Amino acid sequence: MNLSRAVEGLIALALAEDLAQGDVTSDSVIPATLAARAEVLVKSPGVLAGLDVAEAVCAAVDKALAWQALASDGQPVAPGAVVATIAGPARSILAAERTLLNFVQRLSGIATLTARYVAAIEGTGARLVDTRKTTPGWRALEKAAVRAGGGHNHRFNLGDGVLIKDNHLALAGQDIAGAVAAARANAPHTLRVEVEVESLAGVRAALAAGADIILLDNMALDMLREAVSIATGKALLEASGGITLDRIRSVAETGVDLISCGAVTHSATALDISLEVYTV
Amino acid sequence: MNLSRAVEGLIALALAEDLAQGDVTSDSVIPATLAARAEVLVKSPGVLAGLDVAEAVCAAVDKALAWQALASDGQPVAPGAVVATIAGPARSILAAERTLLNFVQRLSGIATLTARYVAAIEGTGARLVDTRKTTPGWRALEKAAVRAGGGHNHRFNLGDGVLIKDNHLALAGQDIAGAVAAARANAPHTLRVEVEVESLAGVRAALAAGADIILLDNMALDMLREAVSIATGKALLEASGGITLDRIRSVAETGVDLISCGAVTHSATALDISLEVYTV
Amino acid sequence: MNLSRAVEGLIALALAEDLAQGDVTSDSVIPATLAARAEVLVKSPGVLAGLDVAEAVCAAVDKALAWQALASDGQPVAPGAVVATIAGPARSILAAERTLLNFVQRLSGIATLTARYVAAIEGTGARLVDTRKTTPGWRALEKAAVRAGGGHNHRFNLGDGVLIKDNHLALAGQDIAGAVAAARANAPHTLRVEVEVESLAGVRAALAAGADIILLDNMALDMLREAVSIATGKALLEASGGITLDRIRSVAETGVDLISCGAVTHSATALDISLEVYTV
Amino acid sequence: MNLSRAVEGLIALALAEDLAQGDVTSDSVIPATLAARAEVLVKSPGVLAGLDVAEAVCAAVDKALAWQALASDGQPVAPGAVVATIAGPARSILAAERTLLNFVQRLSGIATLTARYVAAIEGTGARLVDTRKTTPGWRALEKAAVRAGGGHNHRFNLGDGVLIKDNHLALAGQDIAGAVAAARANAPHTLRVEVEVESLAGVRAALAAGADIILLDNMALDMLREAVSIATGKALLEASGGITLDRIRSVAETGVDLISCGAVTHSATALDISLEVYTV
Amino acid sequence: MNLSRAVEGLIALALAEDLAQGDVTSDSVIPATLAARAEVLVKSPGVLAGLDVAEAVCAAVDKALAWQALASDGQPVAPGAVVATIAGPARSILAAERTLLNFVQRLSGIATLTARYVAAIEGTGARLVDTRKTTPGWRALEKAAVRAGGGHNHRFNLGDGVLIKDNHLALAGQDIAGAVAAARANAPHTLRVEVEVESLAGVRAALAAGADIILLDNMALDMLREAVSIATGKALLEASGGITLDRIRSVAETGVDLISCGAVTHSATALDISLEVYTV
Amino acid sequence: MNLSRAVEGLIALALAEDLAQGDVTSDSVIPATLAARAEVLVKSPGVLAGLDVAEAVCAAVDKALAWQALASDGQPVAPGAVVATIAGPARSILAAERTLLNFVQRLSGIATLTARYVAAIEGTGARLVDTRKTTPGWRALEKAAVRAGGGHNHRFNLGDGVLIKDNHLALAGQDIAGAVAAARANAPHTLRVEVEVESLAGVRAALAAGADIILLDNMALDMLREAVSIATGKALLEASGGITLDRIRSVAETGVDLISCGAVTHSATALDISLEVYTV
Repeated sequence: MNLSRAVEGLIALALAEDLAQGDVTSDSVIPATLAARAEVLVKSPGVLAGLDVAEAVCAAVDKALAWQALASDGQPVAPGAVVATIAGPARSILAAERTLLNFVQRLSGIATLTARYVAAIEGTGARLVDTRKTTPGWRALEKAAVRAGGGHNHRFNLGDGVLIKDNHLALAGQDIAGAVAAARANAPHTLRVEVEVESLAGVRAALAAGADIILLDNMALDMLREAVSIATGKALLEASGGITLDRIRSVAETGVDLISCGAVTHSATALDISLEVYTV
Repeated sequence: MNLSRAVEGLIALALAEDLAQGDVTSDSVIPATLAARAEVLVKSPGVLAGLDVAEAVCAAVDKALAWQALASDGQPVAPGAVVATIAGPARSILAAERTLLNFVQRLSGIATLTARYVAAIEGTGARLVDTRKTTPGWRALEKAAVRAGGGHNHRFNLGDGVLIKDNHLALAGQDIAGAVAAARANAPHTLRVEVEVESLAGVRAALAAGADIILLDNMALDMLREAVSIATGKALLEASGGITLDRIRSVAETGVDLISCGAVTHSATALDISLEVYTV
Repeated sequence: MNLSRAVEGLIALALAEDLAQGDVTSDSVIPATLAARAEVLVKSPGVLAGLDVAEAVCAAVDKALAWQALASDGQPVAPGAVVATIAGPARSILAAERTLLNFVQRLSGIATLTARYVAAIEGTGARLVDTRKTTPGWRALEKAAVRAGGGHNHRFNLGDGVLIKDNHLALAGQDIAGAVAAARANAPHTLRVEVEVESLAGVRAALAAGADIILLDNMALDMLREAVSIATGKALLEASGGITLDRIRSVAETGVDLISCGAVTHSATALDISLEVYTV
Repeated sequence: MNLSRAVEGLIALALAEDLAQGDVTSDSVIPATLAARAEVLVKSPGVLAGLDVAEAVCAAVDKALAWQALASDGQPVAPGAVVATIAGPARSILAAERTLLNFVQRLSGIATLTARYVAAIEGTGARLVDTRKTTPGWRALEKAAVRAGGGHNHRFNLGDGVLIKDNHLALAGQDIAGAVAAARANAPHTLRVEVEVESLAGVRAALAAGADIILLDNMALDMLREAVSIATGKALLEASGGITLDRIRSVAETGVDLISCGAVTHSATALDISLEVYTV
Repeated sequence: MNLSRAVEGLIALALAEDLAQGDVTSDSVIPATLAARAEVLVKSPGVLAGLDVAEAVCAAVDKALAWQALASDGQPVAPGAVVATIAGPARSILAAERTLLNFVQRLSGIATLTARYVAAIEGTGARLVDTRKTTPGWRALEKAAVRAGGGHNHRFNLGDGVLIKDNHLALAGQDIAGAVAAARANAPHTLRVEVEVESLAGVRAALAAGADIILLDNMALDMLREAVSIATGKALLEASGGITLDRIRSVAETGVDLISCGAVTHSATALDISLEVYTV
Repeated sequence: MNLSRAVEGLIALALAEDLAQGDVTSDSVIPATLAARAEVLVKSPGVLAGLDVAEAVCAAVDKALAWQALASDGQPVAPGAVVATIAGPARSILAAERTLLNFVQRLSGIATLTARYVAAIEGTGARLVDTRKTTPGWRALEKAAVRAGGGHNHRFNLGDGVLIKDNHLALAGQDIAGAVAAARANAPHTLRVEVEVESLAGVRAALAAGADIILLDNMALDMLREAVSIATGKALLEASGGITLDRIRSVAETGVDLISCGAVTHSATALDISLEVYTV
């Protein structure tokens, strides 16, 4: 399937900011007709994501660039792995280099970090899910990278999931029961209703209101365990807040169904990947 | 001055991905006419960046939102600092919340990390400069965040600086002298010519070729010191590669003029900032 | 809240197609400085929708046009009702006229038709919901018009609801149980899972698979009643197919929870609304 | 010839609103590599329009989809007719399904309704023409659908035809002679000048002013006949207002040259067309 | 009335190409808070056009810039005339300077050249009209500039005028009568039909075919006079080809109705206009 | 390499303004299936530029058009030269004709005028450079046309070169030394610093301040010679202001390094090129 128009638009923005005035070095030094080939080379261990975006960057720079993927998103890779090759005009390879690496490094960084969190809870019943704390303009790409890393997606945006938070209750001057009822009355019936709570009383109120999912915000492990004993099987339970690699397994072992974690998107760092260019 | 059309475009992408179907929770629970106010609250120490983008996000969500900045980009802040307030329709504040935080958290994260690198070389003559390893679509914003953190900008793109790398020489089959001459002949006279070298022989060849700037790639400290002794005053010297917070001061103390560092953009993590919403 | 960028984009398309070459009649005949006022006049009974779009059309044509709404979306109106006034340059009023009417007539047509369907099932427990059979480019607007007419929205798009149809089962070579399990495993936990069935056996299979919603496709009233007796309280039941104004009440009286109807969007006709222009 | 950029833009809007978050059902249930084929199947009698748009939707969803048209725009079709086939990845066919049907159903609905009006006046000398009462964003497509149905186009927009209406005269404080003279003096010489009148006096004034076309607005049949006896051969005569399928033939038989009808675009309903999907 | 979206888009392109990376000189040298004022100063005699575009450039650069027009499009100006003032942030004035001048200089150049052609035929009955030989992206602006210079517009594009040329006849294998009949049958009735001819036989054939306008291509003065004697009063006559300032009056004096001239758009040069900036 | 998105955007604007409503003449007269071929024929001597844009126009009109270039940008051509051929649907060739000619005529006009200036200074050491006085929306294209004519580019925009003018000094209340120091401190180190002066005192101050380039604005030949004797070898010297074909060689012979000339872009006229269309 083609990349979405939104991702094509992001690629266009990216190329505009790097190439709007051309590549003055290559244009000065390298003959227009020179052909070359290149390898996308992994330099740190990690999990791949964004290869299709890199391919689209090449196509957007020059239709004459031939991209061949040698690996796929979601695949763990070791240093030294060549995950794709590019062949075509030398100037075009150099023009595409930085932008394609910037995409694939960031997305693979997210997949890699996600995979670490997922590995940490392996064997527990909990599912790692992302948040809306994504890089503006990158949400679909970053959510796909989370999936590549073995995580799952929470809602994509404010329209495809009901999540009633403290702010909603405080602003609306409503209790949980009233807010859940309002959501049931107004929101599409295709969406589950989730309620954020910070206490066991909140858990009980959300259950009573018929919430489908209860977000347990910033609870200590003991309280999480109690919440599970109260609500398990009656609603999905999602732990959230302060989820670190050190702590996530103990959170999962409380028996929650889901653990949401902003860090996998907002605090991932680039995976080290480079482009090696060769004469042909 | 208005934000650029490119940044407005990125904000539009960001709002589309979060709000294209509206905010089903707020629309169900919160009255359309309810007013509220909010505070942008810093929760970790850092350096601010992106406040103007956050203001523009508010304006793009609802012209009725009143943003008041209480701090400015480049300012160091402590946990508990309120750096801006927002007043207006409650639904609109909640609709803008995540997107504006995603912008200001990432940009402040970059400013904060940059400031740490800059502090590490304080008092040496070296200038910290960024690279083109920025988030696609975000270059101008991230380069501004680097400046907010006290860093300086390297070239913005492939058109506003000549940087001859090994790849250029290898592909063109030219030596440094030939490549510099080609750049002088073809590139705008307003641009300096920079040459990447990996050895002292390269430094000498670049000097002989009349390079304005020499990029010393991945050199050990001893070699950097020798490069400085050879070339200082004849060309600007830029150290690059493997620049970490631990190592940067010793690099700076070799006497180089510039140190370029990709990590400040590709490996910064979000600064912890939240939105506190209140009834009015 | 501002209109979304997508709706602004649709307005821009609409004005481009009507005004790209200016208004050669008004420019020839009417002085540039002449002021006028106008009334948006309803000529057939109906329910209003799209007034905010009409206001945005005026603003997009000329910032000097002053729009004042005298009614609001969702309001039933009788012939002769003046639902908004416009004041400003005469040429600008005439330039905006056709485009704003085209928007508000179509959207009010949808709200009006929806209101008829909703009235027909008043007092039954069933909820009228729309479909994805909307005018391409108009989905958010048409779904808002359905709400203005008293209907409810089904999913907005292919990403915010799971709906397993015959095609999915046939193509995947899976039974309902397998498909529901796959959806649970892969789709965000915030979404309910809906399954389309055409028989009572299908209803039972969907229930057994744990479907949250069962779409009863093109069933006769008797079968609908049996489906309700089997599944009510265990899953939401949605009737679909061949829903007409004549038949909808008997469908609702079978006890289904939801009735989805494509006609309210794909076969609504324009409500008769005109613009009366006056000298000032 | 390629579709225009405006139509490509409308297709992009349409796909964004249906697919911005992907297709969560197909992605969960159907293997990425599964191939399928589909038939575009007519279920009600009508006239086709928009097949090229449907093809472009397929290409915009996935370049790997192969579209083969088995009929062409303007062709009358009976229930059961397969008018096109699609082959390619199953997920892509399902992703394109709703959007391509929404386009072709609406446009064929317009062609079908137009064809009924055209048939009603067959053998009279009158030509059925459309109006600017089109769906915003769809003008070129809907005007092409009118042509597919055997109708003709009136002006496309406010810039490619001079049409002096009562509003122009009232606002400008001019009589018909003055307004026609102003139009002649200012408008491009390539455009005919049309004047709207509501009385026989108006017809005579328009003739005296040298109008090329006279729009006879909302006239009874008797008055139309008199207008024809006064003006035929001296100006083109266009009847307008209250044109229904019942009445149009009697209007045509008065001898007018043109009959303009908003209903063919603003009140057409979707033609019933579906997509049948098969395994391969 | 607002500028069209197309012109706003052209302004956005223009600012992107000049300001995408900011103004590195002003940002380095001039304080962000410094205010200034500026005058748009005419340095050569000419006719103004494009002032509204210049104002829109200022608004697009910085909403804080206050533009005050002291003259209007179509007005003849002498060296030394100040035609507008700007007040606001100094950096913003300098950022807008070059782009606004580039617009107003080019458009005023066209108005100025047009005015010379119009003056040359003053008192003859002929009307100077432009062509489609405009700068791509600038058609509406350049046609407005022609009007500002006292000229008139020919058709705007390939859709708002029928012009049958030799190529059409040759490709279609039709004579003039057949082609005119085809145009009458297919094109909107609001458009006149124009035929290009190169001989008196062509004039007679076009008249016989009922052409509304005859384009007399590259005819000598004698032939033009004969064409006028044959066709005047029966069709509009438009002379075209090789129209220079030296020759245009003698062409007009043959009695043709219209003279079309590509040079006024494709060969106009910039009017000398500058921006004088002052401290406040 | 593909054309940039900005140029593709300009082509889209151009086609929209010519073809948004189709080609009513060709659609009426020429069969949809008729094939034709065409030649791009030079009618005046000049230097080519913009052939790749013309090719892209053809592709944007109809993917079925086959473009074959017989010459290349920068090549001098004589009247009668056929520089490209087009084959494909006759309607598509006629639809593309005017837009592609408008591009290639204007760009070749710039290349031709540039080549005259370059020829005038042949053998002197001076380099002809362009300015930012380009057609808004066309900068990259016009700067490429200057290179095609043998000229060189000055900075592309306000971000890729530091040029301190009188306005900067006056507004900032700084002398040259202060302004140059500020630029060194704030601007990227990859950019040279240029200072505009109008006197020999200015030359000396700029040299003392360490300017890399000195722009000698509107100096008489004697003063230029003195400036050269003062500064040659210490800074690049660029003459500017009042550069005409008559005067440029004497300016070059003063020994300046660069001569910048706005006329090559703001006052170039179209090169005469036409499209000859043939039946096949």
